[in-house]
Amino acid sequence: MTLLNHQIHLAKRPTGLPDKTTFQFVEEKIGEPQAGQVLIKTLYVSVDPYMRGRMEDAESYVEPYQLHEVIAGGVIGEVIESASEHYEKGDVVTGMYGWQEYYIASEQEIRKVDPSIAPISAHLGILGMTGLTAYFGLLHIGKPKAGETIVVSGAAGAVGSAVGQIAKIKGARVVGIAGSDEKAAYLKETLQFDEVINYRTTTKIEEAIKKACPDGVDVYFDNVGGPIADAVLTQINRHARMVVCGAISAYNIQEPDIGPRVQTTLIKKSALIQGFTVGDFSKHFLEGAAQLGTWLQEGKLQYRETIQEGFDQIPDAFLDLFKGKNIGKLVVKVADRQFEAKQ
Amino acid sequence: MTLLNHQIHLAKRPTGLPDKTTFQFVEEKIGEPQAGQVLIKTLYVSVDPYMRGRMEDAESYVEPYQLHEVIAGGVIGEVIESASEHYEKGDVVTGMYGWQEYYIASEQEIRKVDPSIAPISAHLGILGMTGLTAYFGLLHIGKPKAGETIVVSGAAGAVGSAVGQIAKIKGARVVGIAGSDEKAAYLKETLQFDEVINYRTTTKIEEAIKKACPDGVDVYFDNVGGPIADAVLTQINRHARMVVCGAISAYNIQEPDIGPRVQTTLIKKSALIQGFTVGDFSKHFLEGAAQLGTWLQEGKLQYRETIQEGFDQIPDAFLDLFKGKNIGKLVVKVADRQFEAKQ
Repeated sequence: MTLLNHQIHLAKRPTGLPDKTTFQFVEEKIGEPQAGQVLIKTLYVSVDPYMRGRMEDAESYVEPYQLHEVIAGGVIGEVIESASEHYEKGDVVTGMYGWQEYYIASEQEIRKVDPSIAPISAHLGILGMTGLTAYFGLLHIGKPKAGETIVVSGAAGAVGSAVGQIAKIKGARVVGIAGSDEKAAYLKETLQFDEVINYRTTTKIEEAIKKACPDGVDVYFDNVGGPIADAVLTQINRHARMVVCGAISAYNIQEPDIGPRVQTTLIKKSALIQGFTVGDFSKHFLEGAAQLGTWLQEGKLQYRETIQEGFDQIPDAFLDLFKGKNIGKLVVKVADRQFEAKQ
Repeated sequence: MTLLNHQIHLAKRPTGLPDKTTFQFVEEKIGEPQAGQVLIKTLYVSVDPYMRGRMEDAESYVEPYQLHEVIAGGVIGEVIESASEHYEKGDVVTGMYGWQEYYIASEQEIRKVDPSIAPISAHLGILGMTGLTAYFGLLHIGKPKAGETIVVSGAAGAVGSAVGQIAKIKGARVVGIAGSDEKAAYLKETLQFDEVINYRTTTKIEEAIKKACPDGVDVYFDNVGGPIADAVLTQINRHARMVVCGAISAYNIQEPDIGPRVQTTLIKKSALIQGFTVGDFSKHFLEGAAQLGTWLQEGKLQYRETIQEGFDQIPDAFLDLFKGKNIGKLVVKVADRQFEAKQ
């Protein structure tokens, strides 16, 4: 069996917001898996804001994407041929092999996911990197205590909505910052956030945060950076922890990202700002995934996902991330399962 | 015995750099110590950059000085009358009672210092808050490992020169940033710093840091903030720790303190910026002071102090801090000891 594989490559590094010219569709034949390998058919592809950072050049980013190579990212696929003792046809697996329809993976590049816990796409979201990002950033850096006030920006996004719920589980008071009334309603009514600020309809963001956080801010989980982060900084308490997960406001700007310096506030408040990526906690992934699965099954954690359909829709779905439209996790469905679902 | 006491009060809150009108000399009679109290004659007064922050108003600072009250700060004094079982005439003590010639202290406001370890003024510097600030900020937040590169700004100042030496004791490579060739020579030749950058004669500070730190920056101990901190941020390694102790560049400016936002770099590098004040570590002061005393007696730690003389010179000495002239700790000698030195 020789299959035709489609891939999406980084055609050129974007200046500002990426567009269609950033990407190139490439067709290739794909061979047979060799001993220890499996052939995977892609079912779902993850599109995430952090991928914009990896499109920058080598000078400024740790692990940039290479030009004219497949754009790497989280994928859920199904094993359709196996030359490995550890995998068989129909196994659902996840890996980071990126935007392509098929992939020949060695055993150590993938791991099985349990399709019985939740819809399999959840393993790209709440049970995957997204959920783990929220879990470790909040609990290992933010360390919220019961009764403390947590502010999360990008609150209706995949990471932000998980952060707020985990903070609630830990007994904190949760204030979300989001960009539409629809998102605000979802966060307050469905996810039980204590307060939500719609930053697009608020002219004085600093005042709004002050009002929503009368006891000040103990933990800030930052997905956006920029003026919102500046405003939160003015309201922090002593020993506040600001967890920097994302800075979506800065990903596509072409002018320098300039704002108030943080040093005097950090001294006055004995506070910290810490950046991270989920890979920093890879040693603890199993523990985190198990806890997230438990909370999900107990109904303590909810999630939403927006599913777009079709391999050729991946670039558009990625660009939608920067339009602030989606609630929850954005994934692209590429194919249906070929084999029977197994328990 | 009724003594005439002189005090220096905060006359008005400075805008920008303080000047003589910031301070007011006040004369009052001082009474007798009551049971559990002692009368202290001030010997040395500490002047420190952080005191500028406390001159700001209540809105923005945690513990502002009150107008028309004594300016609080570290003092070394001698007990000249005692109504306490725990103190006797001639005991050398330290406290935070500030800029005044005499003070009636209760027992819990002061502690004895050992005049046999070092000249007593050292208990305001390397063996006092200054040394403890360097010790805890560097070791509890910066956590330098052998072989790592540590950059310290304000490197010839009281805190900075201690930080660099402690980092050397821990086996790190130490790069100082200071503001004169005299300071640079002192740091390299006397204190054995590995590299020193004179930021006043360097037009491209970022390039200079890059050259002095070919393996990048693992720990930055920041005493200055501003463009120097901005430049160091561009050269940090993964998991770098930036310890914010002071931001002297920002203390007296009247325009907003604006610079590059830190979020994207912190994410890319999984790095942290943490502010602190020495009081955060008060539970560990005895441990820190003992270690500093041991290093001093072993000759592993050196210090310099600049001593100005005369109670009326205190405001001028304080203002000198912002002129960048002094090397090491700046103290004002107010009086000689009245009683015999005891062992």
